[in-house]
Amino acid sequence: ASVDKGVDFANYFCTYAFLYHQKDMLTDRVRMDAYYSSVFNNKQHFLGKTVLDVGTGSGILAIWSAQAGAKKVYAVEATKMAEHARELVRANNLQDVVEVIEGSIEDITLPEKVDVIISEWMGYFLLRESMFDSVICARDRWLKPTGVMYPSHARMWLAPIRSDIADQKMNEYEGCMDEWNGFVRETKSSYGVDMSVLTKPFSEEQKKYYLQTSLWNNLVPNQVVGTAAILKEIDCLTVTVDDILKVEASISSTISKEDTWLCGFGGWFDVHFKGRMENPAECEVELTTAPSIEDGTHWGQQVFLLNPPICVNEGDEFRVNFSMSRSEANHRLMNVDLGYEMKLRSGKTLPTVQNKFYIE
Amino acid sequence: ASVDKGVDFANYFCTYAFLYHQKDMLTDRVRMDAYYSSVFNNKQHFLGKTVLDVGTGSGILAIWSAQAGAKKVYAVEATKMAEHARELVRANNLQDVVEVIEGSIEDITLPEKVDVIISEWMGYFLLRESMFDSVICARDRWLKPTGVMYPSHARMWLAPIRSDIADQKMNEYEGCMDEWNGFVRETKSSYGVDMSVLTKPFSEEQKKYYLQTSLWNNLVPNQVVGTAAILKEIDCLTVTVDDILKVEASISSTISKEDTWLCGFGGWFDVHFKGRMENPAECEVELTTAPSIEDGTHWGQQVFLLNPPICVNEGDEFRVNFSMSRSEANHRLMNVDLGYEMKLRSGKTLPTVQNKFYIE
Ligand SMILES: Nc1ncnc2c1ncn2[C@@H]1O[C@H](CSCC[C@H](N)C(=O)O)[C@@H](O)[C@H]1O
Ligand SMILES: Nc1ncnc2c1ncn2[C@@H]1O[C@H](CSCC[C@H](N)C(=O)O)[C@@H](O)[C@H]1O
Repeated sequence: ASVDKGVDFANYFCTYAFLYHQKDMLTDRVRMDAYYSSVFNNKQHFLGKTVLDVGTGSGILAIWSAQAGAKKVYAVEATKMAEHARELVRANNLQDVVEVIEGSIEDITLPEKVDVIISEWMGYFLLRESMFDSVICARDRWLKPTGVMYPSHARMWLAPIRSDIADQKMNEYEGCMDEWNGFVRETKSSYGVDMSVLTKPFSEEQKKYYLQTSLWNNLVPNQVVGTAAILKEIDCLTVTVDDILKVEASISSTISKEDTWLCGFGGWFDVHFKGRMENPAECEVELTTAPSIEDGTHWGQQVFLLNPPICVNEGDEFRVNFSMSRSEANHRLMNVDLGYEMKLRSGKTLPTVQNKFYIE
Repeated sequence: ASVDKGVDFANYFCTYAFLYHQKDMLTDRVRMDAYYSSVFNNKQHFLGKTVLDVGTGSGILAIWSAQAGAKKVYAVEATKMAEHARELVRANNLQDVVEVIEGSIEDITLPEKVDVIISEWMGYFLLRESMFDSVICARDRWLKPTGVMYPSHARMWLAPIRSDIADQKMNEYEGCMDEWNGFVRETKSSYGVDMSVLTKPFSEEQKKYYLQTSLWNNLVPNQVVGTAAILKEIDCLTVTVDDILKVEASISSTISKEDTWLCGFGGWFDVHFKGRMENPAECEVELTTAPSIEDGTHWGQQVFLLNPPICVNEGDEFRVNFSMSRSEANHRLMNVDLGYEMKLRSGKTLPTVQNKFYIE
């Protein structure tokens, strides 16, 4: 599937051209601390080395790489944000080390291969935005055979959760349908047109919007009602685009709370900075976006709602078949098929339920 | 300037493919009543005639035209909404009269010329969305020399207003800058990067967003503090695209309230259904989006804020130089230059002030 660049820009890149949006990321303390530590606690990876920052945005990671002693940093950014990155580099007196290049990483050329690729490419639930494709492309073209990826590993997680938003969204959906039904009556009586044939497609449109679109949420740990499982593990040094086109996993989870509601599943990710086998990090750093009271991130978690919620008990077991692939209309968005089967601790097995979700 | 169709679809058409959005228009009583009356009180224009509905959306105007006795109605819609329109036509048993055609009006061909072109093409402040271009194109290609346009005329209005949102937006802007300044301090102390060079571009970005982007608002009549003036009059039968690429007007307005605040200008439009000179409407209908207590529309008014507001008095006079043209990046959005000069009733003249606004 070939991607129209203009359309991709309109749909995706445009927001990154705003300082406001870059600031959202720059004020995410968990994110900032993880990248900061990964660089400054592993200076041996940067000292005298060449670095490529894929999607430099404001330029922050390129600047840190230079401050940690890099000999040369290529900072590539597709949007006009590149101009601000250039200003920032100069204001921090690093213009002799950091070279800002405006362009898509897929299109530009560098004069040399690099020792390190650093990038903050993670979208909601890791793969939304599909920006990791660009990092893989950069790695295959520009990383030395001995080079190191920052981050080096990534994982996707899924866990059963409880949450009030399941009810809330159901109420919103129902309110919306009540309004629609009033509208159909009105349109018939005042304007002589019978709209009832559109009730079904309207309800499908609204169901998709309210109930089947995954929600951004900052969950807290006690909303997780069962064991979390890993859906996918990625070695950033070796993974291919083919490996991430589809994420398929069959996992199990055991409910850990007595007499609670299962309202859906929460998805999140973590990434690790471990260097590479032959050249490991001195100090391994983890960036996690798991449910947390104090350490929430701008990524939050993605919530996939079950309607209606199910009453569950400690020891109940789930088997979840998870499959995520890219939306046909927009390769940066995702479709999720989530089927689950429940084995109660009593031994009884409930029939499989199949759900479709959209990560928009 | 050529327009990339894919980009135009991503930026513009996509929202019209949702029933939710069509419903917003279909529940706008003022809009519905005006079109309904214009058709059913002027049946002589429809009886036994051929009609083209440009951008039929849900199909409502095409269906009314058929119900008013049209022999044949071509209902053209660029988005997938065409499928719903087709269902609706069939459910109302008009499939022998109404033919729904999915495609851009610029691309499709009809088997004949038509007697009437009906269309609801008006965007915020009349011309936002630039959809009228498509109606002009349809008219030049498909309207018989004797044909009638529905609506037949359109006007743009501007008036001085007072409003709390001027202060509110200024507060929001200032709050946003305070936060930014905290962020700059934080980033320097915690992460060793001096972001202060970006303060100016950030403040410009936020000024544009909070203060220079025109606002959707439903004004009430007593917020209008001076005489309203016409910026532009359009005869839909004869106007060309060139005539609407730019709207330039020099108008005056007299303040009609004593000791009040001038907080900005409100812009709105009206359209009229008068038929044509040789074939006038039996019953002329007006659709106005002027400030109103009971008859607000989904268009509201566009508000252009002045910062800071100015204290004015009855009898003070304004001269406003207004110029609106299309945004280079997106021909469906507008840039406005609004200069004003004030002659106080005391005889004193205040210097000209020049403002730039964006209709996004
Ligand atoms: N293919 C590509 N080529 C160049 N830049 C890209 C890209 N895909 C995404 N980007 C840019 O990558 C950035 C990701 S956001 C991260 C910004 C910055 N590195 C930080 O950590 O704060 C965005 O600014 C986006 O415009
Ligand atoms: N060039 C073009 N060709 C075909 N349809 C177009 C078009 N430009 C805009 N449209 C469609 O015109 C519609 C305008 S909204 C009005 C919808 C309907 N006539 C009603 O009155 O309720 C949208 O559905 C939009 O998709």
